Amino acid sequence: MIAIHPLTGMPEIYAGDDLAKMLREALETAGLWPIQENDVLVVTQKILSKAEGRMADLDEVRPSPEAQELAQATRKDPRLVELVLRESSAVVRAVPHVLITRHRLGHVMANSGIDRSNIGPGGEERALLLPVDPDRSAAELSHALAGGDGIAPAVVISDSFGRPWRHGVVGVAIGAAGLPALVDRRGDEDRDGRRLEVTQIALADQIATAAALAAGEGAESIPAVLVRGLALPPGNAPASALVRPVEEDLFR
Amino acid sequence: MIAIHPLTGMPEIYAGDDLAKMLREALETAGLWPIQENDVLVVTQKILSKAEGRMADLDEVRPSPEAQELAQATRKDPRLVELVLRESSAVVRAVPHVLITRHRLGHVMANSGIDRSNIGPGGEERALLLPVDPDRSAAELSHALAGGDGIAPAVVISDSFGRPWRHGVVGVAIGAAGLPALVDRRGDEDRDGRRLEVTQIALADQIATAAALAAGEGAESIPAVLVRGLALPPGNAPASALVRPVEEDLFR
Repeated sequence: MIAIHPLTGMPEIYAGDDLAKMLREALETAGLWPIQENDVLVVTQKILSKAEGRMADLDEVRPSPEAQELAQATRKDPRLVELVLRESSAVVRAVPHVLITRHRLGHVMANSGIDRSNIGPGGEERALLLPVDPDRSAAELSHALAGGDGIAPAVVISDSFGRPWRHGVVGVAIGAAGLPALVDRRGDEDRDGRRLEVTQIALADQIATAAALAAGEGAESIPAVLVRGLALPPGNAPASALVRPVEEDLFR
Repeated sequence: MIAIHPLTGMPEIYAGDDLAKMLREALETAGLWPIQENDVLVVTQKILSKAEGRMADLDEVRPSPEAQELAQATRKDPRLVELVLRESSAVVRAVPHVLITRHRLGHVMANSGIDRSNIGPGGEERALLLPVDPDRSAAELSHALAGGDGIAPAVVISDSFGRPWRHGVVGVAIGAAGLPALVDRRGDEDRDGRRLEVTQIALADQIATAAALAAGEGAESIPAVLVRGLALPPGNAPASALVRPVEEDLFR
């Protein structure tokens, strides 16, 4: 049995907060401390970004001519579009109300992951960027949350992405440490001794999605979730391993 | 807390088997019977297809000229490609070792979801097609598994899809009943009273993905999973609601 525990009651997070300490307190309050072998702590991008001080004041953003043009095409705020461009390496699609980019971390997503909802007082004029290096932050959180017995949780930094061809968002991993974010099954066999046709499993994305079931979206959003009871395969790969390189992309 | 229970010990499934009866027995064996409010039973496409007799004998398939041409381009078995074409409404991408189609049910996926692994004795020459109407089958299973108190499980029929831009497969829902497969949050507000920017959540896909964490792939694959403890939103929408219509597709 796999158990997905939402960590409720965490306080609002501000730039510079000690996120590891606050997560540990939330785990203790929930009766989930100490960490057990195979525990995965899923932390939303939003609270990590807040702790990292990734809030931008839109009034201080001066849109470039390119951002102004793209803002007109997408009917979005030119200051927001300027931030989206700064955070991205390429624009994938720009049509009215839709601006999909390849983020500098490689993820293809709407608005370079920049979020204007639930960002606290003055929200109307501020925007929250993705963490600087979510894989590194995941590793740091994992290290900081190791118990006295040396058992550290795997950590996944989660976000929500829309998808081509399907309606609705699902959880995805933009950071991971302490587990293989991508599990490679090439060479394994099925029950009949046939080579598996499905050879790679996006484990960290699947964990982020499972956590999203407990975390909800919007009003009741939960900032972190503990997943307990997984049988984690051996190995280690960061969330960047989930990104399909541009040259392998069949849909550019 | 959300609990994901793999249903182990189910027998091999054959065409005509009473799947509802076998699932009920597996639930009883696992101590999960009777069904509780908000339970979601996730059933893999594979066992539903087997029970529906969707196994095709490749030796009886005569490839059309179109299938032969496409088989050459994709370096795949022409008989398999013929089945893929019969099950699809459009070819989305065809390059060596990759054949992505829009399935007649609307899902964009590799090989029209046709599977050659884990299909039992004689597997080398057989292929398993998707169920005929997974939304209807989900509704029938839900109805058949209602307890004496009238509580029926929601049912999700799951499969694994690859994705553009990201490595690895994740779970998806190709059938659903008894829950809103797509949750529409348009008009809802966040904690600061702002309109939510994320307005639709692919709930059934997220549940299928969470179940995949317990079900595994390949050798140790588990045919069904019970997800207990969700707070299911009201409403009802089948998995077909998750399909983005061709005319809304930004990536054709």
